[in-house]
Amino acid sequence: MSLSPEQQAEIDALRANPQQTLRTVAPGMEKHLYLAHPVLDHGFVRVIDYMGDDAAICQAARVSYGKGTKSVQNDEGLIRYLMRHWHSTPFEMCEVKLHVKLPVFVARQWIRHRTANVNEYSARYSILDREFYIPAPEHVAAQSRVNNQGRGEVLQGDEAARVLEILKADSARCYDHYEQMISQDGQQGLARELARMNLPANIYTQWYWKVDLHNLFHFLRLRADAHAQYEIRAYADVICGIVADWVPYAWRAFEDYRMNAASLSAQMVDCVRRMLRGEQVTQENSGMSAREWREFQDIVGL
Amino acid sequence: MSLSPEQQAEIDALRANPQQTLRTVAPGMEKHLYLAHPVLDHGFVRVIDYMGDDAAICQAARVSYGKGTKSVQNDEGLIRYLMRHWHSTPFEMCEVKLHVKLPVFVARQWIRHRTANVNEYSARYSILDREFYIPAPEHVAAQSRVNNQGRGEVLQGDEAARVLEILKADSARCYDHYEQMISQDGQQGLARELARMNLPANIYTQWYWKVDLHNLFHFLRLRADAHAQYEIRAYADVICGIVADWVPYAWRAFEDYRMNAASLSAQMVDCVRRMLRGEQVTQENSGMSAREWREFQDIVGL
Amino acid sequence: MSLSPEQQAEIDALRANPQQTLRTVAPGMEKHLYLAHPVLDHGFVRVIDYMGDDAAICQAARVSYGKGTKSVQNDEGLIRYLMRHWHSTPFEMCEVKLHVKLPVFVARQWIRHRTANVNEYSARYSILDREFYIPAPEHVAAQSRVNNQGRGEVLQGDEAARVLEILKADSARCYDHYEQMISQDGQQGLARELARMNLPANIYTQWYWKVDLHNLFHFLRLRADAHAQYEIRAYADVICGIVADWVPYAWRAFEDYRMNAASLSAQMVDCVRRMLRGEQVTQENSGMSAREWREFQDIVGL
Amino acid sequence: MSLSPEQQAEIDALRANPQQTLRTVAPGMEKHLYLAHPVLDHGFVRVIDYMGDDAAICQAARVSYGKGTKSVQNDEGLIRYLMRHWHSTPFEMCEVKLHVKLPVFVARQWIRHRTANVNEYSARYSILDREFYIPAPEHVAAQSRVNNQGRGEVLQGDEAARVLEILKADSARCYDHYEQMISQDGQQGLARELARMNLPANIYTQWYWKVDLHNLFHFLRLRADAHAQYEIRAYADVICGIVADWVPYAWRAFEDYRMNAASLSAQMVDCVRRMLRGEQVTQENSGMSAREWREFQDIVGL
Repeated sequence: MSLSPEQQAEIDALRANPQQTLRTVAPGMEKHLYLAHPVLDHGFVRVIDYMGDDAAICQAARVSYGKGTKSVQNDEGLIRYLMRHWHSTPFEMCEVKLHVKLPVFVARQWIRHRTANVNEYSARYSILDREFYIPAPEHVAAQSRVNNQGRGEVLQGDEAARVLEILKADSARCYDHYEQMISQDGQQGLARELARMNLPANIYTQWYWKVDLHNLFHFLRLRADAHAQYEIRAYADVICGIVADWVPYAWRAFEDYRMNAASLSAQMVDCVRRMLRGEQVTQENSGMSAREWREFQDIVGL
Repeated sequence: MSLSPEQQAEIDALRANPQQTLRTVAPGMEKHLYLAHPVLDHGFVRVIDYMGDDAAICQAARVSYGKGTKSVQNDEGLIRYLMRHWHSTPFEMCEVKLHVKLPVFVARQWIRHRTANVNEYSARYSILDREFYIPAPEHVAAQSRVNNQGRGEVLQGDEAARVLEILKADSARCYDHYEQMISQDGQQGLARELARMNLPANIYTQWYWKVDLHNLFHFLRLRADAHAQYEIRAYADVICGIVADWVPYAWRAFEDYRMNAASLSAQMVDCVRRMLRGEQVTQENSGMSAREWREFQDIVGL
Repeated sequence: MSLSPEQQAEIDALRANPQQTLRTVAPGMEKHLYLAHPVLDHGFVRVIDYMGDDAAICQAARVSYGKGTKSVQNDEGLIRYLMRHWHSTPFEMCEVKLHVKLPVFVARQWIRHRTANVNEYSARYSILDREFYIPAPEHVAAQSRVNNQGRGEVLQGDEAARVLEILKADSARCYDHYEQMISQDGQQGLARELARMNLPANIYTQWYWKVDLHNLFHFLRLRADAHAQYEIRAYADVICGIVADWVPYAWRAFEDYRMNAASLSAQMVDCVRRMLRGEQVTQENSGMSAREWREFQDIVGL
Repeated sequence: MSLSPEQQAEIDALRANPQQTLRTVAPGMEKHLYLAHPVLDHGFVRVIDYMGDDAAICQAARVSYGKGTKSVQNDEGLIRYLMRHWHSTPFEMCEVKLHVKLPVFVARQWIRHRTANVNEYSARYSILDREFYIPAPEHVAAQSRVNNQGRGEVLQGDEAARVLEILKADSARCYDHYEQMISQDGQQGLARELARMNLPANIYTQWYWKVDLHNLFHFLRLRADAHAQYEIRAYADVICGIVADWVPYAWRAFEDYRMNAASLSAQMVDCVRRMLRGEQVTQENSGMSAREWREFQDIVGL
């Protein structure tokens, strides 16, 4: 991560200056405000603003006039009920705004989550910084042999070295050429909106991203999952930690009913019932394909 | 408007208890928090929470690290530029959450604005209050003769009296029957989800409504417009006042470039140019239909 | 259901007139086009148009140039894989447009599904018909004692009769008054946008509703569920039958992985594993609340 | 554009095989189906499917049972009225599905239009083709001196030659290295999800993009505008031609009331009125900034 001294000074100034508000304040979130949580080699996640807390979820679900007179225990119970029964609108009543610095290929996956607000740094208007994602050696991995869209073993020795060398050299050369093309020193200088096309997908970009808690949970379920590409998962994992501090009840409900939950197909439910009655169930008499059967075994721990 | 003493006490308690935050605070909005602005005979609009201010719009547009070092004058200029050139995403970076009490027929128009978050009081789960919208005499108007979906002159005398009598009597009778049907006194009591179907569309409901500033401006442009039905316009007008206090630069830009702006068709632009060159333009040589020509005359003040 | 002879003639004319197209045609859907499937006492669902079929889901998932050379078996396998692993975008590539006639209180639940396109019959502009939903006797049920937002036993005898009498009489009276208020016979006539507020929520409205298959599945999972209010479930059930004819592979995948699937919380997964290892698990040592434990017992059939 | 013989054969096969349907058929659109309209050096736009036509817009606006008995003239008048008065939902009743091949930097602008459905070719799963956008010499332009996010004069001579050489050489080298890294010849082969990060933003990708007509018009208004970057405008222009054939009435209304219309601010409206009354209006007494005044002069042709 690379914050300039000026940027760090701006962050420090903002954190030094609390103000009074009548709004709901989430103490667990105040401690994160403006700080840059490092992700990958040059990226970060910063909380710029937030709206609501656990109590706000309940307040909206009850359409109440004040904070409600219900006990804290009732709040957690209500939140767990809402999550378990797929009520989405009360979770939409919390909102968070993040400043994220991330490689372009990660940004391209991230933007597919459409129900969010985004302002991205414009490479038509501005000049991008010379910052590229170069994976740490333990993340330079081979194509998976079992999963067409995943990675397998970590590359070793010469092959790993060659990969890192290529990524570094091509990034540097492409950026040098980018600078040469836009330079107005002794020439007109190519339009920035054109020159940017020479930059590879591991260059870093930045954006402000604002999303409600329901849609953020959806993002985290998909992107903090073991099947997500490591580089976006690294961001999702940092955001998970922030959400756990912001809305602890909602976070625990999300863990229990989404992240660590399992979806059993009709056939899987039937097999569990038969097995609990003592029946011997095999893939052959399960009604599942070989692939589903393996997924089932993973879930029930056989 | 009818807040119970308990509701008023909850509001007072919330307003008596400021807390410290590191977030952006909009002083013009703090003064509105939780207060119930009356609308129509029993309705209200209350600000429950907000995120951002004028500076937050600029901060997102610039994807900046802090508040930015730009002058206040620059901020207003940037906001006006963004509004004039239809940049929508920076305005999406502000968010507001309202608690609204409104008649069902107004709620049915309002909900058509889809890009918002809503939690409505559930008449499957709870019992609705005996509160119905009965228009003030100056709003009891005849069907318009020129506009199929509007109202014309205010009704007078017996006809007006009959209307008000019908509305009051039918509301009261339908509610009495609603209560009789759900009563568990000496009978089982009809399910609330069924009994509610006997209630007319002037009964009041309530909801929490959360929306970003861009979509709120879109709502206000359509619903604070002279062609909107008076009853939803009454809500939009109150919200306009709140937004003007919250984000004064954005509000003035919205007034100049949306609310009080005019959209000229290709034909209208052509006519203005010809007229400014001194040409005599009539409907016949304007390329417009009679209806468009009248709309054009309204815009250019002829 | 009440189609006038003119309406029926229009439908017959449309069905008598096939045309040639190069687009994908789903034979199972052609047979439904324009026909009014009756729902409740006066409602219906009609398919007005559709886009795509099972093959179109696969074609988009593969971003292919033609229909693809893959076998039909591969198509079903791919669709089941996409559904099981929560891939939503390929299902968004199918679209359906329905004409629905439905009571207002059902419309109010339905409209909460925001990712859809709607044109509703305007009661500001037009006069509503005298058609009200009066439940069949077997659907006039008491408030549930165990579920705050559900219904329990069917009402019997005098109580049931009183309910039906109230609903019929109030509907008729409110509609009579609606007609009196808007009448221009010997008076000016109240604006339609005002008069409509006297009509109860069991009056029928109509709309065109257009939605993609992914969002339609989400609608059906919630509204064809046993916990949905009967009156909206009646519409969802009819649409389920239509979808099963339109995209049979996607429908079966939806049945197996959504409708008849079960979501096990982290605690439930743990209990299943312990039980399959022969451990005695009770609510006390399950980590679940009493309510969750009952839900768990329902799923695993204990 | 580069379709392989197999791809062309698939397209020919689809076009050779009309089928019968009861749905609305738009003859102007049938002629486009499946054909690849070339854009830029290797890109294309293909219509894969569509729903609706001009009559379908009117049918939904009227919530009618059949095609309606209104005359064709009425249909065009209604469509113009709907467009002029910002009615959006009837236009949402038409839908189109496109297959687009486009450079990644264009895809990144395009995807910001969120209300659409997208399936993109996956570079995690598949290997990208060696196809890069290299601008034609007349599009290699300098950074604009007046517009921070635009381009100015076309580059000449050596500078232009250097730019094209850089773009070609860097594309080729980065792709060579991409292939070397993923090769499984004598090595494990880097995961595709990692190797893709070495590819610059001028590489071509592909997607299926499905959108309703209202949101497509919004896309075209912004992207077929003179201020849009040339490379995305090239796609928008091709789509404009397709839409004009598909829904000719809606297209003309869009041209008159959006594309060739002008939005006058409150101050501009005031100035037009004053000028038409014969008053001498200058920037100084106009209430506009210098920049707005220039925009005003452009509109009114002074």
